Amino acid sequence: MSAPAATQLLDPHSARALVDSVEAFLFDCDGVIWKGDKLIDGVPETLDLLRSKGKKLVFVTNNSTKSRRQYAAKFHSLGISVSEDEIFSSSFAAAMYLKVKEFPPEKKVYVIGMEGIVKELEQAGFTAIGGPEDAEKRAEWKSNTLFEHDKSVGAVVVGLDPYVNYHKLQYATLCVRENPGCLFIATNQDAVGHMTDLQEWPGAGCMVAALRGSTEREPIVVGKPSTFMMDFLLQKFNISTSKMCMVGDRLDTDILFGQSSGCKTLLVLSGVTTETLLHSPSNQIKPDYYTTQVSDFIGFLGS
Amino acid sequence: MSAPAATQLLDPHSARALVDSVEAFLFDCDGVIWKGDKLIDGVPETLDLLRSKGKKLVFVTNNSTKSRRQYAAKFHSLGISVSEDEIFSSSFAAAMYLKVKEFPPEKKVYVIGMEGIVKELEQAGFTAIGGPEDAEKRAEWKSNTLFEHDKSVGAVVVGLDPYVNYHKLQYATLCVRENPGCLFIATNQDAVGHMTDLQEWPGAGCMVAALRGSTEREPIVVGKPSTFMMDFLLQKFNISTSKMCMVGDRLDTDILFGQSSGCKTLLVLSGVTTETLLHSPSNQIKPDYYTTQVSDFIGFLGS
Repeated sequence: MSAPAATQLLDPHSARALVDSVEAFLFDCDGVIWKGDKLIDGVPETLDLLRSKGKKLVFVTNNSTKSRRQYAAKFHSLGISVSEDEIFSSSFAAAMYLKVKEFPPEKKVYVIGMEGIVKELEQAGFTAIGGPEDAEKRAEWKSNTLFEHDKSVGAVVVGLDPYVNYHKLQYATLCVRENPGCLFIATNQDAVGHMTDLQEWPGAGCMVAALRGSTEREPIVVGKPSTFMMDFLLQKFNISTSKMCMVGDRLDTDILFGQSSGCKTLLVLSGVTTETLLHSPSNQIKPDYYTTQVSDFIGFLGS
Repeated sequence: MSAPAATQLLDPHSARALVDSVEAFLFDCDGVIWKGDKLIDGVPETLDLLRSKGKKLVFVTNNSTKSRRQYAAKFHSLGISVSEDEIFSSSFAAAMYLKVKEFPPEKKVYVIGMEGIVKELEQAGFTAIGGPEDAEKRAEWKSNTLFEHDKSVGAVVVGLDPYVNYHKLQYATLCVRENPGCLFIATNQDAVGHMTDLQEWPGAGCMVAALRGSTEREPIVVGKPSTFMMDFLLQKFNISTSKMCMVGDRLDTDILFGQSSGCKTLLVLSGVTTETLLHSPSNQIKPDYYTTQVSDFIGFLGS
């Protein structure tokens, strides 16, 4: 391991050393690539530069409401060319978890969540039910009437769902409790998130907790901070975590996540973390490197 | 303490001793008073007999969907005369918790739950908002638009809610996270319950968990197995728990709950527990007494 003992300000020398030593850069998006709906300066050129040096780029998001295709469209709308293959959303992670575990394609997957999960499951060859289709359904307590559920559901995937309702919760609860071996997969467990620019809203952690409450079971988490993504990249591209660099703007999520999975870590100051906070005695989380923003690479590696 | 060391089958002698030694009987309802929608034999006469001996009767239920008045109507429809004052529902418990804690009446209470909670809060002099009124509301993620919440909400009460939705969850989350000192009260945390005769459904524990997930806060629980009821009875009627007898059909809930709060305990075999299970080596929960059904008191205490 050639990682420095303390946090190092990125400079031409360390930037070259970092780029030479890693094969993949994993980017958190908000605060790194964009802020809200605004691209951060110099991002497209930086990504082109890293690609030209043969680096694999992975854009990591716990957002499960979109599929990779829909997420790529967001990148394009902001003026960045990113391929679906470079996106690792928690919706894709759920589908890949089932793939890696050789989930039988004849079994079904019940979804509490949005279209993103359904699309990724279908693209991976699985049959998804529930999700947006069940948004308007009601569950009624009727005497002598059984609330029926599909016994061939072998997995429940729960993500952020602004249309969560009692029908979906009962359906998922019955699958998890009554279908033998049924998996309970959470895209992520973020308590809240900036679904709008002005405030935070309940995140996937809210819906996942609801199903934990009714089933008294713990989910398999596939998004951050689970290290499923790293295991997947290792299997698929044969890149070990010591050859990955996690780039993020949050110490207690991105950087901690990168460190705990054995990646190199780079903090950018273009998001929520200030240099003062990074160096304050109360902060115990020290990234390997830090810099103002990702486009600093252009100057450091230039010409 | 005159409690016997091991479980004792109720007989004329011990029944008299038990009745003489307690001032209040706390009854679980399902499996003790009724089974589903059918009254258990001899219940009305037994309740009359215990009342004639000056015993206070309390019917305990974690059902928060009904108010005490609505619950009394259920008793009457089954042919039992029970007054509102004898009912301790978790909806009432939530209102009494606020009363005991001197919750300021000028503050509001946001409800995730049914009419029972709203009615009990109003009867106790509090202003309840949310609940059934918010059943059809949608929360939309709109740019530049703030989801507004009432800053005068000082408590959120969460109970079983078959109309739970994202609007309610966002509203309650904002109150708990942003209103200083806002209480988070759970009527109960039952994972599932027999809402219909043929199957179980997600219980209040599901909605409570959802709000725990989004707020990362732990609730104050007022229904079983919290001992708030015992504290309340002690304060209101000056009856110590050693003078109460908890009557129930479940070892791991009713009997354990009674024991942990210092009550005498009587298991009836008219519900889910068999005599074989009670005496099996795997069972560690030993009630003070057990008997076939509550009406056995009639024969034991008769004339």
